[in-house]
Amino acid sequence: MSTEMIHGGNVEQFARKFGFAPEDVLDFSSNTNPLPLPEAIKEQYAASFNTLQRYPDLEYYELSAALSSYTGYSREWIMIGNGATELIYLAVRSIKPGKVLLAAPSFTDYERGFRLAGGRVELYRLREEFEFKLDIEEFLEKMREGYEMTVLCNPNNPTGYLIPKQDLLFICDEAKKQGTLVLIDETFIEFAPEAETASLLREISTYDNVLILRALTKFFGVPGLRLGYCVAHPDLLQKMAIFKEPWTVNALASVLGVSLLKNEDFIRRTKKWIAEERPYFFRGLCSIKGLLVFPSSANFFLVKLLKSDWHARMLQSELLSDMILIRDASSFTFLDNRFIRLAVKERADNDRLLGALQYYY
Amino acid sequence: MSTEMIHGGNVEQFARKFGFAPEDVLDFSSNTNPLPLPEAIKEQYAASFNTLQRYPDLEYYELSAALSSYTGYSREWIMIGNGATELIYLAVRSIKPGKVLLAAPSFTDYERGFRLAGGRVELYRLREEFEFKLDIEEFLEKMREGYEMTVLCNPNNPTGYLIPKQDLLFICDEAKKQGTLVLIDETFIEFAPEAETASLLREISTYDNVLILRALTKFFGVPGLRLGYCVAHPDLLQKMAIFKEPWTVNALASVLGVSLLKNEDFIRRTKKWIAEERPYFFRGLCSIKGLLVFPSSANFFLVKLLKSDWHARMLQSELLSDMILIRDASSFTFLDNRFIRLAVKERADNDRLLGALQYYY
Repeated sequence: MSTEMIHGGNVEQFARKFGFAPEDVLDFSSNTNPLPLPEAIKEQYAASFNTLQRYPDLEYYELSAALSSYTGYSREWIMIGNGATELIYLAVRSIKPGKVLLAAPSFTDYERGFRLAGGRVELYRLREEFEFKLDIEEFLEKMREGYEMTVLCNPNNPTGYLIPKQDLLFICDEAKKQGTLVLIDETFIEFAPEAETASLLREISTYDNVLILRALTKFFGVPGLRLGYCVAHPDLLQKMAIFKEPWTVNALASVLGVSLLKNEDFIRRTKKWIAEERPYFFRGLCSIKGLLVFPSSANFFLVKLLKSDWHARMLQSELLSDMILIRDASSFTFLDNRFIRLAVKERADNDRLLGALQYYY
Repeated sequence: MSTEMIHGGNVEQFARKFGFAPEDVLDFSSNTNPLPLPEAIKEQYAASFNTLQRYPDLEYYELSAALSSYTGYSREWIMIGNGATELIYLAVRSIKPGKVLLAAPSFTDYERGFRLAGGRVELYRLREEFEFKLDIEEFLEKMREGYEMTVLCNPNNPTGYLIPKQDLLFICDEAKKQGTLVLIDETFIEFAPEAETASLLREISTYDNVLILRALTKFFGVPGLRLGYCVAHPDLLQKMAIFKEPWTVNALASVLGVSLLKNEDFIRRTKKWIAEERPYFFRGLCSIKGLLVFPSSANFFLVKLLKSDWHARMLQSELLSDMILIRDASSFTFLDNRFIRLAVKERADNDRLLGALQYYY
């Protein structure tokens, strides 16, 4: 049963279509940490077979404790979910907002979630000529029209733009005045330079109208595990708990999640990798004529194909003959078929894509 | 963040409360296959570490194929979910029924799902003096009052009662007349004697108003994996697909699910175990004075404590001092604090519980 949704990372679909083995495809379409998982996690996985035969802990006690120490918030401020995705849909379903403001292009499941819950979505267009940055004055002006909820992805998927901390605080303050709930999707924030400072995590302790969404999926590179969380005022989380379904996070995820969050070496190596490879890949892409690369604070780049006779799907097909999968970004609102999204990977893989692009371009 | 729900199988909660290691608790509270998982599954698990680093296949193509061959229905008739639980909530959310008929006592998440979706729930009381059987004439009469949806758990949790096939067909036919959607929860059906005949799976190909709910959780003993599915007319599933959230089943579940469904030896051994242990455990329980045991076609028994000075929570506490966890069934609608639910386990474990009960009684 297809759900007819378009997302990156669906290597299996492409592999089936073209007759590859999924593991042979070099996947630039999904924005996750490409480093191999630590040996310690592999060992723990090997020792965790028995978790399959037990129900997950309904309270996810150990995992909550690990998230508490990772985020600096007590467990009443934390809710765990099946990836960030469950929590997006859950928040929308619990709040049932009428009029909603969404910046676009951005992750399309926000819009889908709101529409399914009967919300009236108004889009604020991030403009290409402004490098898809959020114009804070314009956005605040828009907010004053009065919305029950707004969502900001920070850094934004697929553009990579990071909203400055001061702008975020302006938004949260205005939201407080207007009675607007702000969901800030920080699933990519740990890839950003100076992530600690860039995140709004520290500041939200004084807000009861802001929800920070996080996941292990991207930064810890475990999209197959399905593990996300959010941090928000306990009153807000209690509203969401009324609608929460039981056991959505499987037992293995709850066990491995704890160790991943505590693995400081892996966190350090990941930060080192992105700090080196993001500028390297950016320079490499910029050096290819006919590509317009948007600056990014995340682990991916939005790229526009400038040659008039090229479009995203065509380039995707061409690269698949080299067993390389890229994300055709034309399914994002306000983007057309000249946009692609490329994840940053390890050096050799980045070089392989750069080489292939140079060949085609 | 506690979700404040009561379910069996939450060994971790009790273990924390009483200071045990969860694996030292003999768990009669969760109704899952107690046999060790097959060696082949263990090997496949060991080889599947890399699935964590890939997004689950959005279409769950291989798993759909395996379910297709297991159920005899083509993939358009099948939808996969995070345990049966996701599909219960999803069905309710997609159908948004107004007036709903629920037989009770039964699995409490049906009622919760309906109430959260704004449904008006009417309860049909299964009567203790009738051994909690469904009185078909009475139920059909009730159905004629006109409901948009009804749910039947078959065999029923926590009573173990299996509705005869003919009665099920009467219900589905009446439902067709009334425009009622029938959800039949068959998550325990494979434990029933002559499960193939007992299930309504074969018959629903002619109904567009019946949804059969299944899971690997119970029969294949993998509650930690979170894997369920439903079988229904493609038109019905398409309505549900509109509301379905992506990636709810993790990548490991989608891989191991395929092998479990194909493991005929494990299926055969499980059927042999339940065919032997259910009557053995039943006789053992019946032989203990002061226990009223209700006949069951499932892998658990509902038991009433007849001694006036005993109640469920007290017995649960007593048994915990022997590291045995039973299900206090008083949280089920229409049951009081004299009801407990006991899962059937392997011989030595069943004997251990029988011995402990004999001691206390």
